[in-house]
Amino acid sequence: MNSLPGAEIEYSRLFTEADVQAFAALSEDQNPLHLDAEYAAGTSFKKPVVHGVLLLGMFSRIFGNEYPGRGSIYLSQSADFLRPAYIGQRITAKVSLQHYDAGKRIGEFQTICFNEAGKKILSGKAEVLFPEGFFPDESGSPASGKSPFLRRS
Amino acid sequence: MNSLPGAEIEYSRLFTEADVQAFAALSEDQNPLHLDAEYAAGTSFKKPVVHGVLLLGMFSRIFGNEYPGRGSIYLSQSADFLRPAYIGQRITAKVSLQHYDAGKRIGEFQTICFNEAGKKILSGKAEVLFPEGFFPDESGSPASGKSPFLRRS
Repeated sequence: MNSLPGAEIEYSRLFTEADVQAFAALSEDQNPLHLDAEYAAGTSFKKPVVHGVLLLGMFSRIFGNEYPGRGSIYLSQSADFLRPAYIGQRITAKVSLQHYDAGKRIGEFQTICFNEAGKKILSGKAEVLFPEGFFPDESGSPASGKSPFLRRS
Repeated sequence: MNSLPGAEIEYSRLFTEADVQAFAALSEDQNPLHLDAEYAAGTSFKKPVVHGVLLLGMFSRIFGNEYPGRGSIYLSQSADFLRPAYIGQRITAKVSLQHYDAGKRIGEFQTICFNEAGKKILSGKAEVLFPEGFFPDESGSPASGKSPFLRRS
């Protein structure tokens, strides 16, 4: 069931005004571009924009819940915010496994988001530590006794 | 008042269990490493860990509220999650302006988080489009009529 590269997982959702307000409250990022329709109307975006970090939560969800799921550990994420994600617009996050290091159990993913028009709005990469035994045909053992989480310390 | 490189801005906060539950609900990332103390006790982390993306919200807050603040636009963020951020532990986010392109109004920041023990738990970079007129001594005009937000499309 568990597949080597290129596994591809997609997840779509629509962020509501309430979602954006909840994230603004939680993060304390009160940039009016996200919260104030009148302010946003005076910008090049014209309408309030979903926080970029909230979009990154879509990747976190895929990795934490679906693939590799329970027991996975997020090691890195990069993102270029290419276009605005608007409130009320369906956004799709897609992760594609590009490379898997069986010794370190680290998968490298391409991570993108696109909008209803198919336009890419976010592009980046992520590294995820896979749970032991995810790929039963491989050793799955770290190369050393050290936690891979600390490999860059 | 507005300074060229190296402006440095710090922001500290303590993430509560309620914060982590709120982010899990909002992002739908239900990884038990963040939510289940019994599960976390059986991992190398021993205790529940704050979602990495929630830490990135600290940078979003600094850029959106403080520096460059109102009118700024988040262009990119990268992060290596080096060590766990534990619930109830005070985390400090620090952004340092490394370079500013006055023509494009784009600032490049080093972005890090460290814990109460002074250990770096997150390291990355960010690019932010500054509001027009932020540095009054400079032209502040984009090099072309195109939106810099779309420069990588």
